Amino acid sequence: MREDENTLSQATDFIAYVDQLKGVIRQNGLFDDSRSENTAEHSWHAALSAIVLSPYANEPVDIDRVTRMLLIHDLIEIEAGDTFVYDGEGLAAQETAELKAAEIVFGRLPQPLGRELRTLWDEFEARQTADAKFAKAVDRFMPLFSNIRNGGSSWLPHGITKAQVIEICHIIQDGSETLWALSEDMLDDAEARGWLRTDQ
Amino acid sequence: MREDENTLSQATDFIAYVDQLKGVIRQNGLFDDSRSENTAEHSWHAALSAIVLSPYANEPVDIDRVTRMLLIHDLIEIEAGDTFVYDGEGLAAQETAELKAAEIVFGRLPQPLGRELRTLWDEFEARQTADAKFAKAVDRFMPLFSNIRNGGSSWLPHGITKAQVIEICHIIQDGSETLWALSEDMLDDAEARGWLRTDQ
Repeated sequence: MREDENTLSQATDFIAYVDQLKGVIRQNGLFDDSRSENTAEHSWHAALSAIVLSPYANEPVDIDRVTRMLLIHDLIEIEAGDTFVYDGEGLAAQETAELKAAEIVFGRLPQPLGRELRTLWDEFEARQTADAKFAKAVDRFMPLFSNIRNGGSSWLPHGITKAQVIEICHIIQDGSETLWALSEDMLDDAEARGWLRTDQ
Repeated sequence: MREDENTLSQATDFIAYVDQLKGVIRQNGLFDDSRSENTAEHSWHAALSAIVLSPYANEPVDIDRVTRMLLIHDLIEIEAGDTFVYDGEGLAAQETAELKAAEIVFGRLPQPLGRELRTLWDEFEARQTADAKFAKAVDRFMPLFSNIRNGGSSWLPHGITKAQVIEICHIIQDGSETLWALSEDMLDDAEARGWLRTDQ
């Protein structure tokens, strides 16, 4: 009885704790470019988009596992913050910070759920399974697509080139060749429109 | 081939369309009371919280179905807006508006996914199945709990009483007796602290 109560208060404390993800601000803008996106709403958008895009996964995926991965994939940002994907140096330091953050974040959950979700997050990060490859593809597609719709709002201020986007986003094709083919068309168009800097 | 392409563009159009949910602002404030919450981040928070709270469901639930319900439960607000749950007159008009909105929102999806998600939304709204009862319990618990953590930020400006919260939130017990018992304790405490108006 006492243990149950402890576990319930651990659950509600976790729910209050993760509310902070709504305050983690990404470089990425909303589709209407009215403001920057936060990581909580990005996580919702990615999870829902995965369901809609699941027919285009390269391999059969368990869409419920993909959805769950995307709900939790950025929780570590509560501790580690968000790093712009085109910030190379930042990304290297970020990896260490994120592993430490994962210990904290998933350690705050009641067990065994904390261990289960940590294992799922590790799978997402490792990108070896069909589910993780597809989840990562959707995660990478989201900011690319919003830049297409809002005229490069997170690309232009940083002078991002098409080559840089391809370097970061080409892993989309590991999860979905169809989505990557579409992304390449979008990037050609974005370059032509001047939303991406043209390399010499 | 042509049909496939159409379906993919329908999928991406839908992804762009639902981005608008990030701009639907609720009465409810964040846990730190720094700003009002939007419906997209609420949907993420509710879906994740359902996973954490699933051990406390009255009946066994399919947590993947519950998660999906919560990801889509408020999509209709893109068309119909958010109505404060304590606005009685607003709620009556809202029901008609929401049914009309559901036709539009789920009609924008590729088929058969649109029909599947519409059926799931109808199930959520009807609150007859174990999954729907639990999903609704979590949906109702979220703003109650945030008011507990931020000192009644959406209750105080409207002079909400404990009786009003009980009337709106007692359906939590249909999905989780444990969560309702906790909610009742929280409401007693909130009343004692003056976050809820005391009826004569």
